[in-house]
Amino acid sequence: MSKVFLTRRERFNAAHRMFRSDWSDEQNLDIYGKCSNPNWHGHNYTLFVTVKGELNPELGYVVNLKTISAIINQYVIEKIDHKNINLEVDFMKNRIPSSENLAIAIWEQLDPHILTLGVELHCVKIEETENNFVEYFGD
Amino acid sequence: MSKVFLTRRERFNAAHRMFRSDWSDEQNLDIYGKCSNPNWHGHNYTLFVTVKGELNPELGYVVNLKTISAIINQYVIEKIDHKNINLEVDFMKNRIPSSENLAIAIWEQLDPHILTLGVELHCVKIEETENNFVEYFGD
Amino acid sequence: MSKVFLTRRERFNAAHRMFRSDWSDEQNLDIYGKCSNPNWHGHNYTLFVTVKGELNPELGYVVNLKTISAIINQYVIEKIDHKNINLEVDFMKNRIPSSENLAIAIWEQLDPHILTLGVELHCVKIEETENNFVEYFGD
Amino acid sequence: MSKVFLTRRERFNAAHRMFRSDWSDEQNLDIYGKCSNPNWHGHNYTLFVTVKGELNPELGYVVNLKTISAIINQYVIEKIDHKNINLEVDFMKNRIPSSENLAIAIWEQLDPHILTLGVELHCVKIEETENNFVEYFGD
Amino acid sequence: MSKVFLTRRERFNAAHRMFRSDWSDEQNLDIYGKCSNPNWHGHNYTLFVTVKGELNPELGYVVNLKTISAIINQYVIEKIDHKNINLEVDFMKNRIPSSENLAIAIWEQLDPHILTLGVELHCVKIEETENNFVEYFGD
Amino acid sequence: MSKVFLTRRERFNAAHRMFRSDWSDEQNLDIYGKCSNPNWHGHNYTLFVTVKGELNPELGYVVNLKTISAIINQYVIEKIDHKNINLEVDFMKNRIPSSENLAIAIWEQLDPHILTLGVELHCVKIEETENNFVEYFGD
Repeated sequence: MSKVFLTRRERFNAAHRMFRSDWSDEQNLDIYGKCSNPNWHGHNYTLFVTVKGELNPELGYVVNLKTISAIINQYVIEKIDHKNINLEVDFMKNRIPSSENLAIAIWEQLDPHILTLGVELHCVKIEETENNFVEYFGD
Repeated sequence: MSKVFLTRRERFNAAHRMFRSDWSDEQNLDIYGKCSNPNWHGHNYTLFVTVKGELNPELGYVVNLKTISAIINQYVIEKIDHKNINLEVDFMKNRIPSSENLAIAIWEQLDPHILTLGVELHCVKIEETENNFVEYFGD
Repeated sequence: MSKVFLTRRERFNAAHRMFRSDWSDEQNLDIYGKCSNPNWHGHNYTLFVTVKGELNPELGYVVNLKTISAIINQYVIEKIDHKNINLEVDFMKNRIPSSENLAIAIWEQLDPHILTLGVELHCVKIEETENNFVEYFGD
Repeated sequence: MSKVFLTRRERFNAAHRMFRSDWSDEQNLDIYGKCSNPNWHGHNYTLFVTVKGELNPELGYVVNLKTISAIINQYVIEKIDHKNINLEVDFMKNRIPSSENLAIAIWEQLDPHILTLGVELHCVKIEETENNFVEYFGD
Repeated sequence: MSKVFLTRRERFNAAHRMFRSDWSDEQNLDIYGKCSNPNWHGHNYTLFVTVKGELNPELGYVVNLKTISAIINQYVIEKIDHKNINLEVDFMKNRIPSSENLAIAIWEQLDPHILTLGVELHCVKIEETENNFVEYFGD
Repeated sequence: MSKVFLTRRERFNAAHRMFRSDWSDEQNLDIYGKCSNPNWHGHNYTLFVTVKGELNPELGYVVNLKTISAIINQYVIEKIDHKNINLEVDFMKNRIPSSENLAIAIWEQLDPHILTLGVELHCVKIEETENNFVEYFGD
């Protein structure tokens, strides 16, 4: 059977601040620079979700992309789009809102739902700007 | 003499909220939708500044792009990058932080400085997302 | 009052064939080359709709982008996305399905609805490939 | 010896329809949605072909990119560009024209010819839209 | 009759140096900075050529894009691609090889040939990097 | 512990020539085509540097991107940007200036410095044009 990797891109716009609540603003500024601005800043985040599975020979695809998109929207986009990642996103609670933690938390959000489709989650990629991105492939 | 249009792209990341302080959160939500989220959201803004001028035949260019870039950075980027547009940006005070108002306010910030270079400001373009942008050509 | 130009990007995927029914396949091939392939080919079209209007000082924008997007979707995208432009798109009936004619026909579809918003349609741009695009500004 | 991965991008525009001939149009519509439109639709497909090989120390490259490009053009692009994938592309005969099957079939088209160059085919990637792509790495 | 603007993108890779031969290397360095490096540097230039014309109602287009592309290739790309703009490009002789001068010189190269097609040259745009571009609309 | 891959994009513009000094210009032309033009040509190179490391749970990231960017700038960009790769770049001395050799040499430049940060260099990717790129993952 042929393994194929399928990727869906989704986008969200959110505010965040690199910040540890057990540090002073000065300490946060010292470590995180302008990314710790107390009044927040934000990004157009681009999310790439890659799943891996065998070609379904009857249907001609690995898994219906609309289903993948619906899962990403239900468990990630609706919770984070036009939100403040530090204050309002349940799956980011108690995590420093870095791209790394976003990728890991989004993996955890999606993984159980992707598995029910008979395919495996392979990679979560977060682009924060055109110059910076992270990829997480699970543990 | 040959008129040429020269464009410089700069980028900034900022938080904002579509919001009128004389309206309730409900009224703001009704008009602006999720863009009025009280805890903010943000964008990777892309700014294109176009100037128009005659070719300087001795130097081979219209105006030094480094000078244009320095002006944009001094009067716009340093004031808005990694900031909250509603709360922290002097040139956006008392303006609803839409892309339209950003373009107009950035025009006002840049115009007097561009003029000192012997060229005219022609257009300020703001891309808020890959799907939405505004252009302002002055009054 | 400040005039601002606002652009919304939308996308559609469609099949077409450069073809005149009063010519033979050979004549069509001679003029249009592989673009006249009788079994069709297709594109990911990108549509940019630019409107021009005065800033609404109370609301901070020219016109609600969601309304613009809804009009484009109702009168253009729903009729053309995942369709055959030669056979199935009412507003392209009896027009050779070039990018030029697409831009003109989309202008005619959108213009009366855009006018009801108190703004003017300024430009319809169609990108057929990364190398080719057309712009129509009305007559 | 140093292994390097070399990727060449090529593009093609084609019509297709997600469709099984042993199903009714209703069944096809039920499974594939608007992608099964009987009158076809189409895409600007982007193809990325990645080969893996050792650096040729005498020549400074892994393999001549012009040769890779010529192979892709001869065995893939000339057969599929401006064509109907369901009806006219020999290597897609009896395959549902999904991106997954395109990637697998293009792998099969290219693999024997790439091997004669002393390098291995590593990945075939097909982008159907800016939001969807598949990657196939062989079995 | 409907006026439509049609744009063709072409690309070329070339070496250049911002340099006046009647100045010393020090003077050139003082004015042009690292762009005057005596051993050259280079760019992937992107060229956008826009023509303006009436829709040909019989053919459905303004002008055949293949003809436009052939003219650009014959009179510009073949002379400048993989060349040194200062030393080897006839139409840049005695011009400082800025993007501004490139746009003007390419306009002069193309204008007489575009006119023979019954359309007008409207704009030559040169992108030197993703951050910098110039546009020339003729005198 | 969670392994995450972090990528930083940097850009440089440089001149080069595919060329072996022990071959005649004719031999170089025969093998490398127009890429061996004796008067050079150039590119806007895009460099992607990917590092792999464990999430630092105290800081919320793998490694400070500013540090990665500073290392890339110090050991690569400052040495190659606006330079002639054949003549002026110490780490390319005695190497044919292909993208493959650039990727390997940049790996060697960066690897020892990346290691001091407690993360591993994973991939160096060089895009020479929008159609061609190479990736090197070390030996």
